[in-house]
Amino acid sequence: MYNFSFQNPTRLIFGEGQMARLASEIPKDKKVLVIYGGGSIRKNGVYDQVSSALSEHEWGEFGGIEPNPGFHTAMKAVEKIKAEGFDFLLAVGGGSVADATKFIAASACFDGDPLHILSKGARIRAALPLGVVLTLPATGSESNPNGVMTNYDTHEKLAFYGRRLFPQFAILDPTATYSLPPRQVANGIIDAYVHTVEQYLTFPVGADLQDRFAEGILRTLADNGPAALSDPENYRVRANVMWSATMALNGLIGSGVPHDWSTHFIGHELTALHNMDHGQTLAVILPAMMAEKREQKREKLLQYASEVWKINDGDEEGRIDQAIEATRAFFESLGVSTRLSSYGIKQQHIPALIEALEKHNMIALGEHQDVTPEISAKVLHRCL
Amino acid sequence: MYNFSFQNPTRLIFGEGQMARLASEIPKDKKVLVIYGGGSIRKNGVYDQVSSALSEHEWGEFGGIEPNPGFHTAMKAVEKIKAEGFDFLLAVGGGSVADATKFIAASACFDGDPLHILSKGARIRAALPLGVVLTLPATGSESNPNGVMTNYDTHEKLAFYGRRLFPQFAILDPTATYSLPPRQVANGIIDAYVHTVEQYLTFPVGADLQDRFAEGILRTLADNGPAALSDPENYRVRANVMWSATMALNGLIGSGVPHDWSTHFIGHELTALHNMDHGQTLAVILPAMMAEKREQKREKLLQYASEVWKINDGDEEGRIDQAIEATRAFFESLGVSTRLSSYGIKQQHIPALIEALEKHNMIALGEHQDVTPEISAKVLHRCL
Repeated sequence: MYNFSFQNPTRLIFGEGQMARLASEIPKDKKVLVIYGGGSIRKNGVYDQVSSALSEHEWGEFGGIEPNPGFHTAMKAVEKIKAEGFDFLLAVGGGSVADATKFIAASACFDGDPLHILSKGARIRAALPLGVVLTLPATGSESNPNGVMTNYDTHEKLAFYGRRLFPQFAILDPTATYSLPPRQVANGIIDAYVHTVEQYLTFPVGADLQDRFAEGILRTLADNGPAALSDPENYRVRANVMWSATMALNGLIGSGVPHDWSTHFIGHELTALHNMDHGQTLAVILPAMMAEKREQKREKLLQYASEVWKINDGDEEGRIDQAIEATRAFFESLGVSTRLSSYGIKQQHIPALIEALEKHNMIALGEHQDVTPEISAKVLHRCL
Repeated sequence: MYNFSFQNPTRLIFGEGQMARLASEIPKDKKVLVIYGGGSIRKNGVYDQVSSALSEHEWGEFGGIEPNPGFHTAMKAVEKIKAEGFDFLLAVGGGSVADATKFIAASACFDGDPLHILSKGARIRAALPLGVVLTLPATGSESNPNGVMTNYDTHEKLAFYGRRLFPQFAILDPTATYSLPPRQVANGIIDAYVHTVEQYLTFPVGADLQDRFAEGILRTLADNGPAALSDPENYRVRANVMWSATMALNGLIGSGVPHDWSTHFIGHELTALHNMDHGQTLAVILPAMMAEKREQKREKLLQYASEVWKINDGDEEGRIDQAIEATRAFFESLGVSTRLSSYGIKQQHIPALIEALEKHNMIALGEHQDVTPEISAKVLHRCL
């Protein structure tokens, strides 16, 4: 086990009917800006619940955060905050809205051009306090200090981070996810699954408990994923998916172990250049990455086969093949294709994707920093 | 899954060589009181490491915290704090020292008689800030806001709680546990194991991930426990035990599920009246409690058999019997007897134990509040 430091101060408030807790979680003297996306919260009752919970607060709203949140949209929110004096941000939505709200919180206090937070990794020294009402289990953004923004001028997806960006609280009500479109539910489950794999499927370092926790999240998502689609108002199923997605990327399972974020980074380029859903990119790349890195990941692939998919019979090669196929079949069972061809992406598009990786300095990915652009190209060929 | 709220702000700093982090974790303007137990930290090098890390701080020390920390000892520390103006407490030791330090932190700021925190559950509104250097993985006290103190005047073990009692940080260096006596290592592993069981082995509420996490802790302790004794300087083994003990009682696995603390509460009376080690009391009571509550816990006992001990063959009764026997054998493999007779406790002592439970209002224990004094007596008879 590697040395590590772990701290996560976000208060997680979980369950049906917890939206009313907003009234006491945000100090009464705060002027609250409610930030949301395309307006689905106005149809599913969440907007009304938030509005009702904030009846004793002074508050305003800012809608229109994109599924891949854009820098310029965030800047409009910052203008509104500065003009009207908001001092608490409430993200109501999924990971995109949470990410954008973090970036807005940092930008509103940033001395200089906020674009530098993304383009130059400028340090975030201050941020407005923020909370999250989660409506889509996926990214874990509701209890971590990370985010990803898109610069639509340059077609770049760029990550940012700051210890001051942990939400103060996150309200996780599984019933708020009942009305999600199946495609978003599937994408969210895949996102959480791949987050977990990327902190687990590397090489053994004797971190038994981290492995058991990661396998526990993967099993819970595999066990509940299909029912989340076939039986959308099953509270138990939606609760298990929601809690798993939060635990997948709150820092816990990744403490003291190697990471491999190569699937996410290659996926970002597919979204930026071809507008694929984030979850779709992961469903395509992960099985190909497993196959490409079969030797380096051998021990963990065999452990994954046994612990997550109960594959214990046959020789090593066969068990690894079965584990990769089980992963692919799981994603397909959620209605998400695991082949680039299904999204209209062909061999001829690969060079531009590799160029984009190189431009973003994504030239030594993976737990061994050996996923070079050449290897990324091989992975993408396996995805066709 | 039940509704819940989970927050744990303690920063966990894990690994060999992390003791030096003390220098930066405690503000330089704080006057630190280092609190410890019987002085083993002077022999194993931990005292020297702490002393070296605090070289730029003003600090003093208070030793002599008992294995079951006493109220009057804590009051002597409070006197010293008030007389000399300490404003940060550093617990260096195991759960006893951490618990005592929390109680001292609260008592130093308490308006009234601190005994009322224990005897009347008086609310803790303020506490000195505190950190922990952990030398014995067991209680989880290093990252939770709970503690247990003993009033030696009345032979009572009494629990207390306060949100302000979360340590600000805990340093977990597995090498600091190498020189522990085997009896303490064994007791600690059993304490962590039973904490986990008490948040897991009740009845199903559809909390899949909490179940997987609890099973993960139990498996990790079962996998590493014997080697922690046979190979005491095995870093990997000690690291897995240490991280498991912290995760067993930091609030995470207990979120959203029923609890059954009956084994701990009955155990407290055995310690108070017969001076048994805390871990010994748990090793004796848990298998008997499983047997006594076999019907109410049937579904979870079968799940426990399968997931933790891989017992999947045979009829239900046989699988439950095997799971209880596996639990008992695990504790015995750590050198801890699971029978009261080994500790000189006989049938004739049971009435006084039941009287003590009644006196402390422990008359409706367990997840169904149906562990009455009569049932506790039955459990104790099974322990003979």
